[in-house]
Amino acid sequence: MLLLALLLVAPDTVRFTPTVAQPTFAVREPVARLAPGTVLVSRTNFGAYYTEEGGAFPGEVGPFYIEGATTGDVLRVEIVRVRPNYRHAASRVIPGFGGLATDSRVRLLNDPIPSRRYLWELDTVRMTGRTPMPASGRTMEIDLQPMLGRLAVAPRGAEAFSGLWPGDFGGNMDAPELREGTTVYLPIFHDGAYFYFGDGHARQGEGEVAGTGLETSMDVVLKIDVIKGKTIDWPRFEDAEHIMVAGSGRPLIDAFRLAHVELIEWMVEDYGFDKLDAYSLLGQVGENTVANIVDPAYTVVAKVKKRYLGR
Amino acid sequence: MLLLALLLVAPDTVRFTPTVAQPTFAVREPVARLAPGTVLVSRTNFGAYYTEEGGAFPGEVGPFYIEGATTGDVLRVEIVRVRPNYRHAASRVIPGFGGLATDSRVRLLNDPIPSRRYLWELDTVRMTGRTPMPASGRTMEIDLQPMLGRLAVAPRGAEAFSGLWPGDFGGNMDAPELREGTTVYLPIFHDGAYFYFGDGHARQGEGEVAGTGLETSMDVVLKIDVIKGKTIDWPRFEDAEHIMVAGSGRPLIDAFRLAHVELIEWMVEDYGFDKLDAYSLLGQVGENTVANIVDPAYTVVAKVKKRYLGR
Amino acid sequence: MLLLALLLVAPDTVRFTPTVAQPTFAVREPVARLAPGTVLVSRTNFGAYYTEEGGAFPGEVGPFYIEGATTGDVLRVEIVRVRPNYRHAASRVIPGFGGLATDSRVRLLNDPIPSRRYLWELDTVRMTGRTPMPASGRTMEIDLQPMLGRLAVAPRGAEAFSGLWPGDFGGNMDAPELREGTTVYLPIFHDGAYFYFGDGHARQGEGEVAGTGLETSMDVVLKIDVIKGKTIDWPRFEDAEHIMVAGSGRPLIDAFRLAHVELIEWMVEDYGFDKLDAYSLLGQVGENTVANIVDPAYTVVAKVKKRYLGR
Amino acid sequence: MLLLALLLVAPDTVRFTPTVAQPTFAVREPVARLAPGTVLVSRTNFGAYYTEEGGAFPGEVGPFYIEGATTGDVLRVEIVRVRPNYRHAASRVIPGFGGLATDSRVRLLNDPIPSRRYLWELDTVRMTGRTPMPASGRTMEIDLQPMLGRLAVAPRGAEAFSGLWPGDFGGNMDAPELREGTTVYLPIFHDGAYFYFGDGHARQGEGEVAGTGLETSMDVVLKIDVIKGKTIDWPRFEDAEHIMVAGSGRPLIDAFRLAHVELIEWMVEDYGFDKLDAYSLLGQVGENTVANIVDPAYTVVAKVKKRYLGR
Repeated sequence: MLLLALLLVAPDTVRFTPTVAQPTFAVREPVARLAPGTVLVSRTNFGAYYTEEGGAFPGEVGPFYIEGATTGDVLRVEIVRVRPNYRHAASRVIPGFGGLATDSRVRLLNDPIPSRRYLWELDTVRMTGRTPMPASGRTMEIDLQPMLGRLAVAPRGAEAFSGLWPGDFGGNMDAPELREGTTVYLPIFHDGAYFYFGDGHARQGEGEVAGTGLETSMDVVLKIDVIKGKTIDWPRFEDAEHIMVAGSGRPLIDAFRLAHVELIEWMVEDYGFDKLDAYSLLGQVGENTVANIVDPAYTVVAKVKKRYLGR
Repeated sequence: MLLLALLLVAPDTVRFTPTVAQPTFAVREPVARLAPGTVLVSRTNFGAYYTEEGGAFPGEVGPFYIEGATTGDVLRVEIVRVRPNYRHAASRVIPGFGGLATDSRVRLLNDPIPSRRYLWELDTVRMTGRTPMPASGRTMEIDLQPMLGRLAVAPRGAEAFSGLWPGDFGGNMDAPELREGTTVYLPIFHDGAYFYFGDGHARQGEGEVAGTGLETSMDVVLKIDVIKGKTIDWPRFEDAEHIMVAGSGRPLIDAFRLAHVELIEWMVEDYGFDKLDAYSLLGQVGENTVANIVDPAYTVVAKVKKRYLGR
Repeated sequence: MLLLALLLVAPDTVRFTPTVAQPTFAVREPVARLAPGTVLVSRTNFGAYYTEEGGAFPGEVGPFYIEGATTGDVLRVEIVRVRPNYRHAASRVIPGFGGLATDSRVRLLNDPIPSRRYLWELDTVRMTGRTPMPASGRTMEIDLQPMLGRLAVAPRGAEAFSGLWPGDFGGNMDAPELREGTTVYLPIFHDGAYFYFGDGHARQGEGEVAGTGLETSMDVVLKIDVIKGKTIDWPRFEDAEHIMVAGSGRPLIDAFRLAHVELIEWMVEDYGFDKLDAYSLLGQVGENTVANIVDPAYTVVAKVKKRYLGR
Repeated sequence: MLLLALLLVAPDTVRFTPTVAQPTFAVREPVARLAPGTVLVSRTNFGAYYTEEGGAFPGEVGPFYIEGATTGDVLRVEIVRVRPNYRHAASRVIPGFGGLATDSRVRLLNDPIPSRRYLWELDTVRMTGRTPMPASGRTMEIDLQPMLGRLAVAPRGAEAFSGLWPGDFGGNMDAPELREGTTVYLPIFHDGAYFYFGDGHARQGEGEVAGTGLETSMDVVLKIDVIKGKTIDWPRFEDAEHIMVAGSGRPLIDAFRLAHVELIEWMVEDYGFDKLDAYSLLGQVGENTVANIVDPAYTVVAKVKKRYLGR
């Protein structure tokens, strides 16, 4: 209701239907230019790999050039809405990709595990997904918790990372926290930011251990703003309860540390903590999620409840 | 009320007041022999390092020889009660120990960070803790969530690990999930199991990133049983909502994998899942906590909600 | 003498003087097209950061489009000559970059280490370098062992990695083995291969632990060939004594495994070993070098002496 | 000849024939007490697992109580002689143990690799070993390079580590550099040091990647001394050409850093280098060996040639 009202009255709503999928996060010709404050109503591409009848967009939506965004600013993206718009989702076990078996980056002499593919039926009213699991003699039904795997700006310099990569530019963070109600803050490495999004998951486990969530197509509403004159090093999230940082890297401990050190810096900058006090306090009230252990860089989300931060 | 009733009627309640602290998890002369089904009413030692008036027990309580427990069985420990029994707790920032700074195992050329110590006042009725943080210009108050850092059996062979170590024998797992209502299953490497416990935390953050929780003394009630004719490789936990596995090792990704592979084995053994189905499903509904990144081995808790496991 | 003879008689020698430096390894407009069998006589760019009078080419030389090279082939590059052609080299300690201190990827709460810069005088006849080390009360003199940090093809897909990255495409492997007399085999991900080189080190330690070798400008002679109808997954090297593989990744153990598994595959493919026999034998005769622990991916070189491989 | 002379004239030669094998490195009743300056003439135990007729000593020799050694000193052990004294050695591929396949610490969902065992015939005159490799259609012959996998003191506190563990106490470092002519310096954690040795390898590859070298029995001559009033943190080695440090830990990068930071400290303490100068110089002249990637802690040997250290 509230959402509907917002969309109706917002003078700055932009509707964008993607017709092309981008293979990398990089500076390239923008698909649109958006003013700060824009509510972007759009949808994700969806990959042909997970549904027979599926579309032809196995890549990112964007880039959007954000007017007035400079490298001295922060991009603010509020996830207003992310909802599956398709009747199917797919999940997979993939021999060359996944966190609990040998893959192309974790190469051992063992034989690879076999491939398996699950086609899920989505009930977008009840918000459930069902798939047969014959080898387990059952049909699984789970509740959906839709999210976006990827929110990004163009990475620094002339680099171009495939959609599988997360990093300080955001990208494929695969954090379940990237759901409705979460606001994402991204560093800006190029004037205009070059914002991308994609990779809808109707549901994804923490760690995305087997390499896929429930991959499907999403309706997406994002409110995009620029915070002038502030810089950050890593993507930050905020929802009603927590402030959070997504650190990405390998090894996993480095991602863990990147996220937590940036979280401490946030506590220092915006909440007046001394650095050592913040560090020590996280020993008592810190929270974390290993978001992905399958992408070229792993992602850890460090969190602290806002109620511990007020003076 | 319920608890009190239990203690009054249980014919097999044993009260044990520790008078000696053990420096390692190992096979040694037991402090008591307990029959399966015993409700053990005891308390943790507490270390002189965190309170001026504190006692002289900086180590583990135990070992308890569990009658009839063999290497072909599993030790089952239900955490009935764990409550702070002292008016103070301490937390610290320690130059040579901690997860977000150089320490004796993560050695770099940077100068070490300084030392800092916080003395917390505990209100065990309201279940809150308070400490001044002068460098941050505030007094912190947080809610308590008491837990036990350490539950262990004697490790395999003739090895003896200091109380800082977690492992397949349990030990210093430092998982916040080790609270009232959680049942812990431990492998048994020696007849009699040689059970230890210790390391009360009135509150501990996930990861215990600065190296300490709110270290204090605890009243402890544990119900101890033996599951005959079953073996497991890593400590398993269970509460009303989840089944969980605590994997410990370095690097962090190995702890993550140990925990998740054992969780999949549990889903296969006790819930009838096919291995690949369980793997894939965790990609959608898996949960995790990085429990500690400061001990000689890191600990990750892998979790899945029981409601996804029924047939 | 021998070399001179080669250059004089070779009908396929190409002289190329770089005038532009490339910021990434990627598919882009080639600077030249070379036929297989070409002897390329050129020089590295050199970065302004290490000499006051230095040039303006802080990037890669290339790409060279290799005629007839396809994704079903291997690029063969023989390092015929790599010699410093400048009177200075520089080395540095850099606060935000280096393997034994906190940096932008290994972020901790410690204060960063200070910056320091060394200007070395090179004697290219005696092949020595000298620099004052006032803090140590001495002048260092060391023998030069010139090498190329970077030999690359364009990475797979549309990705573009800055010159700091090593990977399966080669890149900034920083292996001291990349010296005169070594032949490098690179996978090909795009028709034409798009070959790059750069990053001359008059001397570099194994691991390049502080982040720089003796950075200077090099005269380079490379013989470039295509091996038709063969594919490899990771860069392979060969000299008079060893076959070698350079695996790159993080964590370090993954780079180690990538290199060694590919080495075993080489022993199987070209020397007739059974896979397990090759694995076991490396337990007795394997050799390795940690080549870099400072770049975005670490590099390990796995080696085995050819004299153990003959039938 | 020279050696023989030494043994004949030394007034302080002790001959010790082991009759019992120790399961852990720990403080326990010494098998002998040795004065500093003693030349210990002994032999390793050898494990029944690698030869049908083999003895019954699958563990360490020791502990030797070194008179006058205190926790403020360093233990100095010169490897005078280490030579195979048996006609067989064994190597293996072990499903649950090894660096390039899943094992009990690197647990994945892949099926384990198969087991394989090689019995080698040793020619201790020609110093060669031969084994059939039927799956590869050949007989392997390699030159022997005998070494000791394990040299240790009792670890700190009351801990007891099985013979598989390396650490700051030395232990199962599995470094090929532990050969004749190398002197080892070990920290001392208990008065008397409690020195152990064992684990003869007629040949071992760097990394010991498949988990075994050529395991066999050794004649051993060690000269044992105490350096009074000096302390070190990690095992240091020295031979004619290099000073070296063996750092052990997981992940591999931590072992790498432990070794290199201690090497820099050595350069500072004994050779007058400024810390940053030493760090930077290793970027040009540092060397390293990954010694083992199969033990509970990995071992890296950091090295620098002595000729770069003189003033």
